[in-house]
Amino acid sequence: MATQRRLEFTTHGRGSRDITDDVNAVVRDSGIVCGIANVCVQHTSASLLVTENADPDVRRDLETIFARLAPDGDPAYRHDLEGDDDMAAHVRSVLSDVSLTLPVADGRLLLGTWQGVFLWEHRSHGQCRRVVVTVIG
Amino acid sequence: MATQRRLEFTTHGRGSRDITDDVNAVVRDSGIVCGIANVCVQHTSASLLVTENADPDVRRDLETIFARLAPDGDPAYRHDLEGDDDMAAHVRSVLSDVSLTLPVADGRLLLGTWQGVFLWEHRSHGQCRRVVVTVIG
Amino acid sequence: MATQRRLEFTTHGRGSRDITDDVNAVVRDSGIVCGIANVCVQHTSASLLVTENADPDVRRDLETIFARLAPDGDPAYRHDLEGDDDMAAHVRSVLSDVSLTLPVADGRLLLGTWQGVFLWEHRSHGQCRRVVVTVIG
Repeated sequence: MATQRRLEFTTHGRGSRDITDDVNAVVRDSGIVCGIANVCVQHTSASLLVTENADPDVRRDLETIFARLAPDGDPAYRHDLEGDDDMAAHVRSVLSDVSLTLPVADGRLLLGTWQGVFLWEHRSHGQCRRVVVTVIG
Repeated sequence: MATQRRLEFTTHGRGSRDITDDVNAVVRDSGIVCGIANVCVQHTSASLLVTENADPDVRRDLETIFARLAPDGDPAYRHDLEGDDDMAAHVRSVLSDVSLTLPVADGRLLLGTWQGVFLWEHRSHGQCRRVVVTVIG
Repeated sequence: MATQRRLEFTTHGRGSRDITDDVNAVVRDSGIVCGIANVCVQHTSASLLVTENADPDVRRDLETIFARLAPDGDPAYRHDLEGDDDMAAHVRSVLSDVSLTLPVADGRLLLGTWQGVFLWEHRSHGQCRRVVVTVIG
């Protein structure tokens, strides 16, 4: 049995946003008690992240490290039509996850206590981001 | 319902190749209209990539950055039996994806307009690479 | 059809451990012959890894490179309450995989000859780590 829903989120520039409750709402509405939920972002300059949901400094530090691994405006980039953050956003997306599959139990995501699911915007400016959630049980 | 098919691709040294149509052919033949497709590469020195399908400079820049994160012939490597690209290929595979799960809708992969699915060869020389596609609906 | 089981592993500080047989035991007990198995770690400072199962130097070299990409005790980290390895562990987890979905064929994981599934502990001290395996067919 498969249920699918398309969600949209407006982002406000680079940064991550907790979408655990949004995914859980789709899981609940599916009526599927045990199985998996696939979450997939429909873009190549945004991504998904499972990380700590308690101390926001974790996600601030992830920004610091990812900015080091994929610097904005690196002189080596050839793809820079949309600005200094353009190619950096593609690299950051590849180094994290475009798609995540998570277990479902008791009709909700089965996550650890400190795990949250985040939509990670990698562009400097806000965008409208589409995310597809598919629940299988 | 699950359908599975094994695909083979001959690569021509380091670089990425669009396999979106190959995966979509398996999805179409499965007859599954709504669900997910799992794509899994059966190697530890090649991987999968979802990134921009329009400007090939994106994938050229990804090569540049990945060569920086996992340099060929790094003096720190102990695993170098098969050459300078041996261990670098394993690291590049871990930093990207061995396995991808993507939504299926209307009998095909539900991807964003600019998203393509690529098989990424990390070895310097061409190889025969096996990819397993499993469609669940 | 979905079958789910929760596994626990005691780790002994930073390093990776082959859990392929443990996952295969869940797949076998599920009775599912063809489908997928999702493996998900319930923590944000441990992760999963598919890499070479033959030469242990591969995993030693992965430690070297990941320690370079996400250094312990980096002065840029703000999140350091639990020590020098705290934030580094979160970054390492994001750069690898919290969740993996792998094909199942003939009642077992369909992996390449050299592929193993590893639980990767990123903290310096041993921990009890929970892993959820969901098999769908």
